[in-house]
Amino acid sequence: MRVEYINPFVTAVLSVFRTMLGTELVRGQPFVKGGFQPRHQISGVIGLSGKARGTIVLSLDRETALRATEVLTQEHRFTIDADVIDAVGELANMIAGSAKAKLEQFELSVSLPSVITGKGHCIEFPSNTTPICIPFDCEWGSVDVEVGLVELPVRSAVTSGVPVLA
Amino acid sequence: MRVEYINPFVTAVLSVFRTMLGTELVRGQPFVKGGFQPRHQISGVIGLSGKARGTIVLSLDRETALRATEVLTQEHRFTIDADVIDAVGELANMIAGSAKAKLEQFELSVSLPSVITGKGHCIEFPSNTTPICIPFDCEWGSVDVEVGLVELPVRSAVTSGVPVLA
Repeated sequence: MRVEYINPFVTAVLSVFRTMLGTELVRGQPFVKGGFQPRHQISGVIGLSGKARGTIVLSLDRETALRATEVLTQEHRFTIDADVIDAVGELANMIAGSAKAKLEQFELSVSLPSVITGKGHCIEFPSNTTPICIPFDCEWGSVDVEVGLVELPVRSAVTSGVPVLA
Repeated sequence: MRVEYINPFVTAVLSVFRTMLGTELVRGQPFVKGGFQPRHQISGVIGLSGKARGTIVLSLDRETALRATEVLTQEHRFTIDADVIDAVGELANMIAGSAKAKLEQFELSVSLPSVITGKGHCIEFPSNTTPICIPFDCEWGSVDVEVGLVELPVRSAVTSGVPVLA
């Protein structure tokens, strides 16, 4: 994944947390995650496709997910329930939507989010992609955003039926 | 999710397991999964987007994932490693590719797969979608395929910049 594609995702995460949750994230140093290291208890996963193929994983610790849901629903939260799932899915969705607007050269569209729970869960990418993990901290705890994005070769335009010669 | 959209996914799963792994799956009764029920140890997740938004989750028990990887790599497998991640990601990718060809009205493209591991992991969908889970059995163990697919309203064609009037 090319480094210049990281910034649209960083900007998207900062902006979504600021405008939707009223909290300022502090970005840490991006890194390439080693395999099979569980880092958080809840993760929103959403796909991007178009002239590139990608996946965004938004991972939150339990406390951060509960506090974020409280802000969105204006109700106290003590357990990971369907509202927390909706909140994390929607945050992933908004981050993807915001980042795709800044990567318009890829004409990306966004898939349906899914949300993973489970204390020891790990999210891996196929070995031919090198996703970048961007860690953030906020007043409630920590947040990771992992992004894999692979540009499609030009011949994909032919196989997908898009005319390349007018 | 409309029932007529299930068949392309069932056909895709049966076909991918038959042609790539040489094993015949037996389909069980599709159902709507209750929340927070871990069912398998490893899951491939892949997004679909276009005139609909979707996500496919291919979940395998440990033994099935190891045996499937053995067939694909021609090497014995005893633990969930990077090759197993690649195998599960690629199976999810092939199922998505095969199903999208049968749902051409939605002009779907496929995101990058990700693969979830962890004994107690659960994969949830936002509450405004009702994904269908299709259980299968094979000689090695059990396989679930869960599909959520939401048609986009026609106005999305306008907001996404596709001309609706020639």
